[in-house]
Amino acid sequence: MTGTLYGLGVGPGDPELITLKALRILQAAPVLAYPAPETGESLARRIVATHLNGDQEEIAIRMPLSAPAFPDDDVYGTAAESIHAHLAAGRDVAVLCEGDPFFYGSFMYLFARMAEEHTVEVVPGVSSPMACAAVLGAPLAAQNDILTILPAPLGTELLRQRLAATDAAAIIKLGRHLPRIRGLLDDMGLTGNARYIERATMTAEKTIPLADVDPAATPYFSMILLHRRGQAWHR
Amino acid sequence: MTGTLYGLGVGPGDPELITLKALRILQAAPVLAYPAPETGESLARRIVATHLNGDQEEIAIRMPLSAPAFPDDDVYGTAAESIHAHLAAGRDVAVLCEGDPFFYGSFMYLFARMAEEHTVEVVPGVSSPMACAAVLGAPLAAQNDILTILPAPLGTELLRQRLAATDAAAIIKLGRHLPRIRGLLDDMGLTGNARYIERATMTAEKTIPLADVDPAATPYFSMILLHRRGQAWHR
Repeated sequence: MTGTLYGLGVGPGDPELITLKALRILQAAPVLAYPAPETGESLARRIVATHLNGDQEEIAIRMPLSAPAFPDDDVYGTAAESIHAHLAAGRDVAVLCEGDPFFYGSFMYLFARMAEEHTVEVVPGVSSPMACAAVLGAPLAAQNDILTILPAPLGTELLRQRLAATDAAAIIKLGRHLPRIRGLLDDMGLTGNARYIERATMTAEKTIPLADVDPAATPYFSMILLHRRGQAWHR
Repeated sequence: MTGTLYGLGVGPGDPELITLKALRILQAAPVLAYPAPETGESLARRIVATHLNGDQEEIAIRMPLSAPAFPDDDVYGTAAESIHAHLAAGRDVAVLCEGDPFFYGSFMYLFARMAEEHTVEVVPGVSSPMACAAVLGAPLAAQNDILTILPAPLGTELLRQRLAATDAAAIIKLGRHLPRIRGLLDDMGLTGNARYIERATMTAEKTIPLADVDPAATPYFSMILLHRRGQAWHR
């Protein structure tokens, strides 16, 4: 009997926003794996830390600072080998995924390598647009709205076209792209329809008027939500 | 002390896909409210039924069969009055929402009426695109993909334009629009990139090849996920 590889959505940050199913599998799996920075703490592990008793084997998938934005072989290939050894020995492995595993998650790098050979089960999680909308008190989308998820690293003209063609949008992965995105929204007259939030549901959560966000301090875990019907949907 | 109005995301259908936070608030609230058909069982209530002990007051917000697709005053206005009376008397009210309250949810009809006057807290939930992707074993979106949520009732030409301008899409609210959407995807050469699923994570969950779906039996809780990179992302 080989083990099962689980992709566990652990939710957006608040440890209470994990599902009962993810918690059950988290606590039963003999081996946990999670993405982590080159040194220091894994965010995915921190989200579930209060639910762990310390008895599980842990594999930190550490990403060197020099890694490209979309890493391929080295780091995930090595992690896949370690995980494979556990699965082959009959041990289930639960991979912790911030938010939802299949919504822009790094789990797909393991999934792409391992799904053919192993039994994989994905447990969906609460993902960041829903968490941000809940904190901002603003519906993401309603009725027959079109909702578009736009990664901020995309080119400005492409983003302009897509923003012009949607009712509602979540602009994700802001980081260093914040000033450019802010300029685009200003240019399109959409600033009054947009709300900025970072680290939604985490202890360091902040909502800041878009004009006041410090571009030097915009984290990766930040997002702009906007809706053409604008402030009427916002508190 | 007035009560708090909670919008509780109860997840896509599997009772185990509720969050710890939603479960805690669900079990502590003296009053529950939920959408329901004109006669018969509420799906949102059914999702949480195993977590209830029967001691709570319940308000079924029953939608007449004759109601328009986007109902306004009557049903939700009456529900808002009942809920208001409980809140004014200091009793918290938890409104059960399938999936996530702010992702195309009917909670917004109550929210729009009550958020100015009352304390409202929204608890985000696992929503249907993430649940469908998990069941299908197919990432929704990766890296710098654009992901577009498209309601099937929209016009065919509008859908065609938006599908041509996205990397990945979730086409929601299929119901009676299935034949038209299927024709559009065929016409665009996207059928091989699309997967159909209904009632994801519920006991009646089904994945069916798109060509084989019976248009006379396509439920509202059905969805097509597609990705331009196609089958490489699918099992």
